[in-house]
Amino acid sequence: MNPAAPALRADADEIIRRSLQAVLPDEAVRRALSGKEFSGKIYLLAVGKAAWQMAQAALPILPPIEEGIVITKYGHAKGSLENCRIFEAGHPVPDQNSFLAAEEALKMAEKAGKSDHVIFLLSGGGSALFELPLIPAEELSDITAQLLGSGADIVEINTIRKRLSAVKGGKFALACAPAEVFSIVLSDILGDPLDMIASGPAEPDRSTAADALRIAEKYHLRLSEQAWAFLREETPKALSNVRSVITGSVRELCRAAGEAALSLGYTPVFLTDRLCCQASEAGKFLSSILKSHADSGRSLAFIAGGETVVRLTGKGKGGRNQELALAAAEGIAGLQNAALFSIGSDGTDGPTDAAGGYADGETRLRLSEQGISIYDALAQNDSYHALQAVGGLIITGPTGTNVNDLSVGLIHGE
Amino acid sequence: MNPAAPALRADADEIIRRSLQAVLPDEAVRRALSGKEFSGKIYLLAVGKAAWQMAQAALPILPPIEEGIVITKYGHAKGSLENCRIFEAGHPVPDQNSFLAAEEALKMAEKAGKSDHVIFLLSGGGSALFELPLIPAEELSDITAQLLGSGADIVEINTIRKRLSAVKGGKFALACAPAEVFSIVLSDILGDPLDMIASGPAEPDRSTAADALRIAEKYHLRLSEQAWAFLREETPKALSNVRSVITGSVRELCRAAGEAALSLGYTPVFLTDRLCCQASEAGKFLSSILKSHADSGRSLAFIAGGETVVRLTGKGKGGRNQELALAAAEGIAGLQNAALFSIGSDGTDGPTDAAGGYADGETRLRLSEQGISIYDALAQNDSYHALQAVGGLIITGPTGTNVNDLSVGLIHGE
Repeated sequence: MNPAAPALRADADEIIRRSLQAVLPDEAVRRALSGKEFSGKIYLLAVGKAAWQMAQAALPILPPIEEGIVITKYGHAKGSLENCRIFEAGHPVPDQNSFLAAEEALKMAEKAGKSDHVIFLLSGGGSALFELPLIPAEELSDITAQLLGSGADIVEINTIRKRLSAVKGGKFALACAPAEVFSIVLSDILGDPLDMIASGPAEPDRSTAADALRIAEKYHLRLSEQAWAFLREETPKALSNVRSVITGSVRELCRAAGEAALSLGYTPVFLTDRLCCQASEAGKFLSSILKSHADSGRSLAFIAGGETVVRLTGKGKGGRNQELALAAAEGIAGLQNAALFSIGSDGTDGPTDAAGGYADGETRLRLSEQGISIYDALAQNDSYHALQAVGGLIITGPTGTNVNDLSVGLIHGE
Repeated sequence: MNPAAPALRADADEIIRRSLQAVLPDEAVRRALSGKEFSGKIYLLAVGKAAWQMAQAALPILPPIEEGIVITKYGHAKGSLENCRIFEAGHPVPDQNSFLAAEEALKMAEKAGKSDHVIFLLSGGGSALFELPLIPAEELSDITAQLLGSGADIVEINTIRKRLSAVKGGKFALACAPAEVFSIVLSDILGDPLDMIASGPAEPDRSTAADALRIAEKYHLRLSEQAWAFLREETPKALSNVRSVITGSVRELCRAAGEAALSLGYTPVFLTDRLCCQASEAGKFLSSILKSHADSGRSLAFIAGGETVVRLTGKGKGGRNQELALAAAEGIAGLQNAALFSIGSDGTDGPTDAAGGYADGETRLRLSEQGISIYDALAQNDSYHALQAVGGLIITGPTGTNVNDLSVGLIHGE
């Protein structure tokens, strides 16, 4: 038995526990509000799949609020919240409840005056859940379908849609003026482009009316006169009444992993929070890093956040994090002091009940004792059953957050 | 024009020049011999494709030698060397000249007495060039063919062959005893397992007679009684008369790149010298690292050595290093302060006249101005023509060394 392996697994589990803790909506909101003071009347708008949790975390910290609106997905409200109206609405396709809730939010925004504050809590899913079209909803659906059908990318689609919405592209913040907006964004988008998350209801819009018109021409969009007029209208390019904080992002996930690793005696080496290559190749790359540092005599934690992709070649069960860990098992085989884990921060990796996978220097041996070849398991995309056979699954259950994936390679120095 | 790009390209070229310089056989031998003192009579044996160059570099530094033997590939001897006999022999298949040269080397080894020194210079190709079978050459060929045909791996094949050779598996060093052997190994094998390079003529053998017998049974080898007897004989497990230095390895290539980067103002971050994943995926991984550090305000050089593989999906022209660089161009597109290069240390990347490729934040834009899509070029494995169109090829000509590949990602701070 490898004497380091149990310690490495325990260290991995501890790093996972603390990293996930740090990016839970509650914790992330608390951190973002810590030390902040708000004067005047306080209004609260929470939008997104984690809206209820974010609001619940914010309310005890904030001064008593004047009025609050929480807009989340059906089934995601967990009870009443003081002074808040709670709307459940359509996702991923906005519905009448989305429009109704956005209308109420705009009415509330108008009540907020100079020296008042609007606390805006935004999480994933906000694009559908918070919408009020400036044109008939049917026309908006038709335009979206035209764009998707012609191969427009997400930036192009958002450039058009921001102009056809009463709340997107900074317009909600504009409606709040002269009140100050403090926006807390729980990000699940790599690299955190603020004006892309839910199409940025409280963010200056980087795209221009000229961009929108060029896109409409490029894809020969069929538009009503009214829609053409909105495309020509400029969105706000600066919003002096808004302060934004990104929290619970994959970067914070990586930072928390680094802090946890440090407290366990590992020197953290932050590689990236933008990982985007193939899962199994990322596993090979990370294992090549571990191999090269195994004899360094130092305890090191190599940290990569992001979201890999799986190349489907088989019909097995697994997920990108499990594939990454299984591929790494080959590279670190035989190393007494190396381990690697990879997890999805939402606790669900692919269509499985595992959050991800763990591998160390003994994993390949244990697999081969059970007649399992890493090569075959990867070719079948069957990482789940392979890791399950050797105790390499990481099970957390749903975590209540979703800020991409975390992969950490450990070298234990002693 | 990106103001940082010309500086980044110049920095890349300088790092390439200095790294390659450091791993040239001449330079590597000089470094390994620097400060060493040798007493008694000096004998020299140089084996491998770079044997002539290594011997030529060593002779002016060593005291006058008593006798020397240089064994290299046909066409690789560049002239006479003082007090040396030069043999050219078969590669990759050993021939009568290999056997003759090895016999002469063993005779020379026997002349070396206590307090004498044998300088042993080993480079790639030594496995074929330096061989003297203990059984008839035909039987050795037949056994090798049986092993290859039954799917034995290289470790298994070497375990058998070491026992059937008069010079492999530490036996040359044993023949030198009681003289001291100073072995300088120019390594092109990832991770530098000394007993694997040319089957380790001067290295203790990690494999055992029991291993050899198990392999013979596993593959149902047909062997003569004589061969069975040799398999049962143990190879040396320790060689107290040998000191070995690995030089000119990919690790030295990485180290030299780090030193060059440091002198140019970049903090080097050594990632790996064991890179082995798909070339384009490695490029994506490295670009994700650069993206995450682009706004760090620091000048950083991320260094990876090793050897990636190309997944063939098209019929274009290119090599693994050019693919890696082209794939990275997508990831770092738009970053003013990021660049990446990847080169084969022999100066030849794939079937091209380029050593590798260079990309920076402008490469994708310049490609698209010429109507070239990175995605398509990668799908066609046509990295050469894509990089050629934008001045992204790195041309060094043949370098006279071969210690795998070097990939370096640069972030310019300020």
